[in-house]
Amino acid sequence: MKPLIVLITDWTYKEGAIMSMKGVMKTIDPTLDITDGTHEIPQYDIWSASYRLHQSMRFWPKGTVFITVVDPGVGTARKGVVALTKDGYVVICPDNGTLTHIAKDQGIAEIRQLHPHLRLPSTTGTSIFHGRDIFGYVGAKYASGQLTFDELGVVFDPLEVTVLSDLTYGMDQDKIFGHLEIDDPNFGNVWSNIPVQLLYDAGFTLSDDIQVTILHNDEVVLQRELPFRASFGSVPVGQPVAYVNELMVLAFALCQGSFAKTFKISYGKDWKVEIRR
Amino acid sequence: MKPLIVLITDWTYKEGAIMSMKGVMKTIDPTLDITDGTHEIPQYDIWSASYRLHQSMRFWPKGTVFITVVDPGVGTARKGVVALTKDGYVVICPDNGTLTHIAKDQGIAEIRQLHPHLRLPSTTGTSIFHGRDIFGYVGAKYASGQLTFDELGVVFDPLEVTVLSDLTYGMDQDKIFGHLEIDDPNFGNVWSNIPVQLLYDAGFTLSDDIQVTILHNDEVVLQRELPFRASFGSVPVGQPVAYVNELMVLAFALCQGSFAKTFKISYGKDWKVEIRR
Amino acid sequence: MKPLIVLITDWTYKEGAIMSMKGVMKTIDPTLDITDGTHEIPQYDIWSASYRLHQSMRFWPKGTVFITVVDPGVGTARKGVVALTKDGYVVICPDNGTLTHIAKDQGIAEIRQLHPHLRLPSTTGTSIFHGRDIFGYVGAKYASGQLTFDELGVVFDPLEVTVLSDLTYGMDQDKIFGHLEIDDPNFGNVWSNIPVQLLYDAGFTLSDDIQVTILHNDEVVLQRELPFRASFGSVPVGQPVAYVNELMVLAFALCQGSFAKTFKISYGKDWKVEIRR
Repeated sequence: MKPLIVLITDWTYKEGAIMSMKGVMKTIDPTLDITDGTHEIPQYDIWSASYRLHQSMRFWPKGTVFITVVDPGVGTARKGVVALTKDGYVVICPDNGTLTHIAKDQGIAEIRQLHPHLRLPSTTGTSIFHGRDIFGYVGAKYASGQLTFDELGVVFDPLEVTVLSDLTYGMDQDKIFGHLEIDDPNFGNVWSNIPVQLLYDAGFTLSDDIQVTILHNDEVVLQRELPFRASFGSVPVGQPVAYVNELMVLAFALCQGSFAKTFKISYGKDWKVEIRR
Repeated sequence: MKPLIVLITDWTYKEGAIMSMKGVMKTIDPTLDITDGTHEIPQYDIWSASYRLHQSMRFWPKGTVFITVVDPGVGTARKGVVALTKDGYVVICPDNGTLTHIAKDQGIAEIRQLHPHLRLPSTTGTSIFHGRDIFGYVGAKYASGQLTFDELGVVFDPLEVTVLSDLTYGMDQDKIFGHLEIDDPNFGNVWSNIPVQLLYDAGFTLSDDIQVTILHNDEVVLQRELPFRASFGSVPVGQPVAYVNELMVLAFALCQGSFAKTFKISYGKDWKVEIRR
Repeated sequence: MKPLIVLITDWTYKEGAIMSMKGVMKTIDPTLDITDGTHEIPQYDIWSASYRLHQSMRFWPKGTVFITVVDPGVGTARKGVVALTKDGYVVICPDNGTLTHIAKDQGIAEIRQLHPHLRLPSTTGTSIFHGRDIFGYVGAKYASGQLTFDELGVVFDPLEVTVLSDLTYGMDQDKIFGHLEIDDPNFGNVWSNIPVQLLYDAGFTLSDDIQVTILHNDEVVLQRELPFRASFGSVPVGQPVAYVNELMVLAFALCQGSFAKTFKISYGKDWKVEIRR
């Protein structure tokens, strides 16, 4: 069976871009099974693209091909690449930080810079739609079996892949610390990078209350005792809660509301979180 | 041929949730045919989820599996269930009112509470993503033929299924009455629960004008003579109209505008509508 | 292999319309491969529907069936049609201007008015959902091989197809001129109808600066020297640029911003653009 294909972009469905890209792929092989991962990555937000890949890739069959195009530098010097992860997935994307989480957590077994001649022949002369002309084209050529992984490009050292700055977490004598790493833009939850196992190791259990401090550029934005629970549904509607998210990291929610909006909280390297007893 | 699968959620495509859920399903069986019914049910709006199921299920092939996850109570005591409708469809969902319309209109032939051991093994420890870990997992196991309907759970009385409050309609000496049951959040139309057959039975025809009264908590919000027509396109742009909607119930629109926004009208048990000659 | 099917509408996924339409099609033939082209055409915007078809159709395999339903006149006298383009695609749509670009650029080889008896039998009595009851139904009957192209309707003269007003472009002694033809509602770029070949023919190259004048109803809205480049990524973030878009026409962007919003610019026959040295 041919590998499945998953698409991740920041294009939305507001115009014809995805329709064009899928047409190119279906022309190469009409039997390809193409799934929309998401086309609503926040505009130009390479960090979110990297996170969503990390969040969802593991649940797909080994061998699945992820084409991830959040690409504000399209048509400039940044490389186009194809990566094979250590756990057996293929990612085709611009080398602009999209592989940050994958490189660190899943690990890259092999990475190749795409050959410049591999592109949709009818579109020479335009430089701003590599999703259609290069990444989609190459992904379909590979998933259909018309090109092997080795034929896609020139191998280079996985240590040279572009990665965005790392977010640390850990424990010291008086606290567990980490960052707010990403949000859920739909429900308004915020996810840290702290594995809940750290809390369990420190003796916290799921009926405890915990002291939460959230800092933006080292200024306290929220300092509060929160219930630590299995679900946002474990507290009354409108109440904040610390809970175990779907990737087993510590997260924050407001039951049937938006934690991010209510407390004006975002995510990234400027956003730190500390947990105390 | 394997049953088709249709997904209905309030998750949107703004993050990786749908991508993760589909990955779980495609890992169980990569040949499954999964259609997005909609992922834009208003947040936590179980009533809308119930209505959309009722609105669209009938048009699918018998045997189609609907996985419906609008689930603010995930991780709490509410049951996970699988229902077989009297007209031959399968619905997998939380037992939180999602089956309200189906139970009343299509009828439930058999319902089972999902066995607790049926869940994605790698995700024990998290309680907030039953769409991925339970409903998607179970739906794929069933649609792929790896589990039979009977193997999914313990049967219970369909009369015990959770249903939201009923909306009545009818006719008395001076009027036809009912509720505004749902909206079309895209075009701003509002749909009542009054079958147009009631109007035909009372002698109204599609070129009549009708007296429409809309009440919110028994206060009149709109009282107006409206043309009763086959289509919103039958009146000039910007004009209100009563028309026969896609399910043959009486509905209200503004030609190429929003009836709901223009007249500040919503739907539900607090919203009544009366039709007079 | 059966033809692929692509859907284009202005319905969004906010309610059950697409789910119902796909159900009708999958009931006729569950093996049909149906792709969402887009369901986010601006409401009632037939011009945009026509443009998106033009933009993306060419990238699909010959024979692909496009069902395009932006249809404010549903249930009124406008015809339902099926067109075969000169380059071998099939389009099923209301005859309301949806075929404007296709008729001019790709050319219509044959067009037929859909037979009135071809509709989903269970839905007589409702007139407002031809996407489900007629266009989707007919498209599935044709793509599944149950009906031939000739069986779908009565042939008529392609010159009688409804087209919206044409946008001209050209060159005179002192300038290249044309219209702003469409936008990219996601990234805020604006696309003209001027082939960049006209600029190349006039001696412009991709490192030049060009004098751009944009007029709305013949009043100047923007007059400015802009870099003419291969990509919006070729200028610093926040800077405006004239670039070669995906269809090789001249377009305007703000690097990682919205040209349309920043300069309050839209598109259509009232919006002209002029290029000078």
